[in-house]
Amino acid sequence: MENFNFYAPTYFAFGKDRESDCGQLVKRFGGSKVLIHFGGGSVVRSGLLDRVKESLIKESIPFLELGGVKPNPRSGLVYEGIDLCRKENIDFVLAVGGGSVIDSAKAIAAGTVYDGDFWDFYEGKEVTKALPIGTVLTIAAAGSEGSPDSVITREEGMLKRGASGEAYRPRFSVLNPALTETLPAYQTACGVTDIIAHLYERYLTNTKNVEVTDRMIEALILAMVNEAPKVMANPHDYDARANIMWGGMMAHNNSCGVGRTQDWTSHTVEHELSALYDCAHGAGLAVTMPAVFRYTYKHDVLRFAQIAVRVWGCQMDFNNPEATALAGIQALQNFLVSIGMPKNFAELGADEKDIEKLAYTCCFGDGSASGKVCGFTTLEQKDVEAIYRLML
Amino acid sequence: MENFNFYAPTYFAFGKDRESDCGQLVKRFGGSKVLIHFGGGSVVRSGLLDRVKESLIKESIPFLELGGVKPNPRSGLVYEGIDLCRKENIDFVLAVGGGSVIDSAKAIAAGTVYDGDFWDFYEGKEVTKALPIGTVLTIAAAGSEGSPDSVITREEGMLKRGASGEAYRPRFSVLNPALTETLPAYQTACGVTDIIAHLYERYLTNTKNVEVTDRMIEALILAMVNEAPKVMANPHDYDARANIMWGGMMAHNNSCGVGRTQDWTSHTVEHELSALYDCAHGAGLAVTMPAVFRYTYKHDVLRFAQIAVRVWGCQMDFNNPEATALAGIQALQNFLVSIGMPKNFAELGADEKDIEKLAYTCCFGDGSASGKVCGFTTLEQKDVEAIYRLML
Repeated sequence: MENFNFYAPTYFAFGKDRESDCGQLVKRFGGSKVLIHFGGGSVVRSGLLDRVKESLIKESIPFLELGGVKPNPRSGLVYEGIDLCRKENIDFVLAVGGGSVIDSAKAIAAGTVYDGDFWDFYEGKEVTKALPIGTVLTIAAAGSEGSPDSVITREEGMLKRGASGEAYRPRFSVLNPALTETLPAYQTACGVTDIIAHLYERYLTNTKNVEVTDRMIEALILAMVNEAPKVMANPHDYDARANIMWGGMMAHNNSCGVGRTQDWTSHTVEHELSALYDCAHGAGLAVTMPAVFRYTYKHDVLRFAQIAVRVWGCQMDFNNPEATALAGIQALQNFLVSIGMPKNFAELGADEKDIEKLAYTCCFGDGSASGKVCGFTTLEQKDVEAIYRLML
Repeated sequence: MENFNFYAPTYFAFGKDRESDCGQLVKRFGGSKVLIHFGGGSVVRSGLLDRVKESLIKESIPFLELGGVKPNPRSGLVYEGIDLCRKENIDFVLAVGGGSVIDSAKAIAAGTVYDGDFWDFYEGKEVTKALPIGTVLTIAAAGSEGSPDSVITREEGMLKRGASGEAYRPRFSVLNPALTETLPAYQTACGVTDIIAHLYERYLTNTKNVEVTDRMIEALILAMVNEAPKVMANPHDYDARANIMWGGMMAHNNSCGVGRTQDWTSHTVEHELSALYDCAHGAGLAVTMPAVFRYTYKHDVLRFAQIAVRVWGCQMDFNNPEATALAGIQALQNFLVSIGMPKNFAELGADEKDIEKLAYTCCFGDGSASGKVCGFTTLEQKDVEAIYRLML
């Protein structure tokens, strides 16, 4: 196991009606004037935004509102949020929504207290300072509610890039599984897929003898595989929603990813798809993961065999471990298809003729990238092209 | 899943040589004058104490030392520590040792800033305020390095009692697995047993449909079962030590115990044994757990069958799930014996003629207890007596 630091000081208020604690939590974590950041009309229509505002009013905490965050959140709204926070002396950013809203809130929180362009953080600068952030989560997926990460898309060139840093860990996150009961089945499934991807990205490591984190990752995938079909059958299965929500946070707060190299190839390859076609990130991952894994599994056949046996219930073929490894990848894809996820370019709305461009942008991006996708394996443009072709 | 709060803001510095970061960490978390608290001579002989002191000196942080913590730490030394901290205006307590040292440090930290008798916290008062605490862990066992808990024994009547509260979470913990390589095999095994007990105490729940935490608990036990024999075979297996150390923290920081009722019967029943005979807590648990489980498993046969199948590799006997449940308990005991743990009163140094007294103290303690041991089941004195008899 490699040396590491782990610091996850987010306060989680989990369960029914916990959004009513927002006001007290903002006060506890030092907020005196709040920007409420959200997406479209669903949090308005459901009454959630009103309940959050009521809890702030109850604690006499003034607030402003900035809605309009879209999936694959854009830099334009971030700049708007930064201007607003500076002009209005906002000292706390409260995200009410899913991963996109939280990621946008994080970018605003960092940009407000930074002299340069916030995009610097998305080109590799570490986030060491930001306004304190709170979240009220409405979909179990991105794990941003407990992570130090954020992903933003810059309109110019449709570049989708991530930033990270301790200051991006929310001070508090309200996790009320009941808020996710009204999600369309497709979005729920996209969320589960994203959670599973966060786990595979950590599982595919080149560090040896990391049994405790291996087992934790396997446990969280097993829980997703057990609970997701229950939610597909009955969207109002609160306990299943709750298991997925806590699992989604645990999948990405990195307690199961410490001390080991991680992969993140699937995310890197997928980001080009959701940036170009504006498809759901989870749907993109459902198509990307099996392709990436089929292209790279020979790098460590027994690792793929291990997850096939321990998670997917495959019998170990001791004469032919490769067969077991591939059976596990197929089982993953079968599961994703069973919960309504796409399995190829066509179902995703992607176009074969873009493959060269996608692979180029993936490897070289805005000119600052290395030309390689590094993680579990090292891939060049031709490899990434071949992976996209496996998705046809 | 039940509503819950989860807040675990401990900074973990994990890996080789991380004790050299103590000075910087104390500074980061606001300490300006430190009490270093430790046990016997091993941290002196190994040079660890000197390395910790050096790192404080490097940051120009003054410190005092208070050694002498014994296993099953006593209230006498806590009072001494409180007096010292008050007289010397200490503002940070740094525990260098195992669970006993950390628990003693927590009691000192709370008692120093409390007007009454610190023992109030060990009679049920919540710990809401304490000096900040740091730890340098020397044995993977108690999980106190990441938990809000502490257990102290009061000399008068040899009462062993626990206290809990947010202020008891350490600000930072240094987890260097290499520090555990010199432990005697017996102590290592006691530590692993304590970790497994912390997991069983959470596993035995009356809350239904808590798959995600079930799976996480199973994962951590599986990791212990995989790694402990490696350490028994080779005490210098760093990776195995590392897996056990991170697993021990995760087992008790409660991320796998949230939103569900927990048991803690085995701990309650065991505490009387280590209080009376001064045996190692882990050894006491090795004898106690199988007895408690054999006495209570009928309360939820399928829960015991689940862990038998998922963790212990038992085949599910669909005609007779009780047989599977019992096979799992036997497998747990076989494992504990295989790593050198005792299996009965005689091996533990306990005496049959004390059983009545043990059961009485367990249920009625200092007169303030309810007369019942409540958790997974509700036990009265006659039940606890019967459990002790199963240990003969």
